[in-house]
Amino acid sequence: MLRQAQHELRLATRGRGLYEFTDQVGAWLSSNGCRDGLLTLHVRHTSASLLIQENADPDVRRDLEAFFARLVPDGDSSFVHTAEGDDDMPAHIRSALTAVNLSIPVTHGRLALGTWQGIYLWEHRRSSHSRSVTLHFIGE
Amino acid sequence: MLRQAQHELRLATRGRGLYEFTDQVGAWLSSNGCRDGLLTLHVRHTSASLLIQENADPDVRRDLEAFFARLVPDGDSSFVHTAEGDDDMPAHIRSALTAVNLSIPVTHGRLALGTWQGIYLWEHRRSSHSRSVTLHFIGE
Amino acid sequence: MLRQAQHELRLATRGRGLYEFTDQVGAWLSSNGCRDGLLTLHVRHTSASLLIQENADPDVRRDLEAFFARLVPDGDSSFVHTAEGDDDMPAHIRSALTAVNLSIPVTHGRLALGTWQGIYLWEHRRSSHSRSVTLHFIGE
Repeated sequence: MLRQAQHELRLATRGRGLYEFTDQVGAWLSSNGCRDGLLTLHVRHTSASLLIQENADPDVRRDLEAFFARLVPDGDSSFVHTAEGDDDMPAHIRSALTAVNLSIPVTHGRLALGTWQGIYLWEHRRSSHSRSVTLHFIGE
Repeated sequence: MLRQAQHELRLATRGRGLYEFTDQVGAWLSSNGCRDGLLTLHVRHTSASLLIQENADPDVRRDLEAFFARLVPDGDSSFVHTAEGDDDMPAHIRSALTAVNLSIPVTHGRLALGTWQGIYLWEHRRSSHSRSVTLHFIGE
Repeated sequence: MLRQAQHELRLATRGRGLYEFTDQVGAWLSSNGCRDGLLTLHVRHTSASLLIQENADPDVRRDLEAFFARLVPDGDSSFVHTAEGDDDMPAHIRSALTAVNLSIPVTHGRLALGTWQGIYLWEHRRSSHSRSVTLHFIGE
């Protein structure tokens, strides 16, 4: 019998970087008895992203961060929208270049992630934030 | 009782830029009595994107557009595929760098968007086009 | 009556490039009698992507590949994570810049793709790989 469930997850960030929360998603699925279906995540902000990336070697996150810092430099003088500081517009651009929602199949009670895949919230602002991610499950 | 609905939205663009259509999506959800579920949008073109971005300060869109124009310049002499003009291949690349489909939870009859999030069609060609976006809802 | 189905597709790649598999997805939908609903694809790797792009002129794929090779060059000396070679970290970054999952409505037994849209697996590593893509359908 198909059914659905929703939940809002709050994630605290301590400045720019990748924060894994795969376990929190898995725990919510378990606590709801979700077996097979589709999980969708949506981040409710325009200066943070959702990313599925390797969760083994932390250097991957370091290199990702360094690449994006070069591609979209803070304080680029061509930006007009600087109301919240010199990392404001870069955060919007990083968000546009990555994803704000993800949909992942759930199989036998587990996310259909590959061996090395983890789910990350990517905070693009340099200061701390409380971020909201909506989870939606549909299935059995 | 779970059910689904589909709709094809036609959006007229007047050249390159971001066109918000959050209200049209919300109106379709309301007219179908959609309460809780999952909305998916898919743009049926390879030279336009779907983007969730800030809908407050228009400078955000201006800076986004300027950044992408620098990252993927029109008329780059390395492009071979120029059949439809010097903005043809840049449009395909901008599409690859952003999203062609989005999935957003619907909660109590409203899209689970953040306060500042709007849904945009991003036209990447410089001329006017009629763009088609397929909407799919599943839920209650 | 709503129902769901899942399948794991194995795709063999012969090094970096775009591999179309729209027909294999369509064949699976047909063999399951899927009429109207939502198809989600998820690639279970962090060095490959899913992309919807033009499937007419092969120069589009050639130009896409050349652009990403310039944007994220192999052997960039700033990368620390080089365990699997000088295309290792570029593969992770290309994956972050594109998509690892896609959701496409299905209408009257067909994917709601535009005339020129095809579904591609984008292999970002230079060597051959066997890639796994999970398909999930929900609908009628």
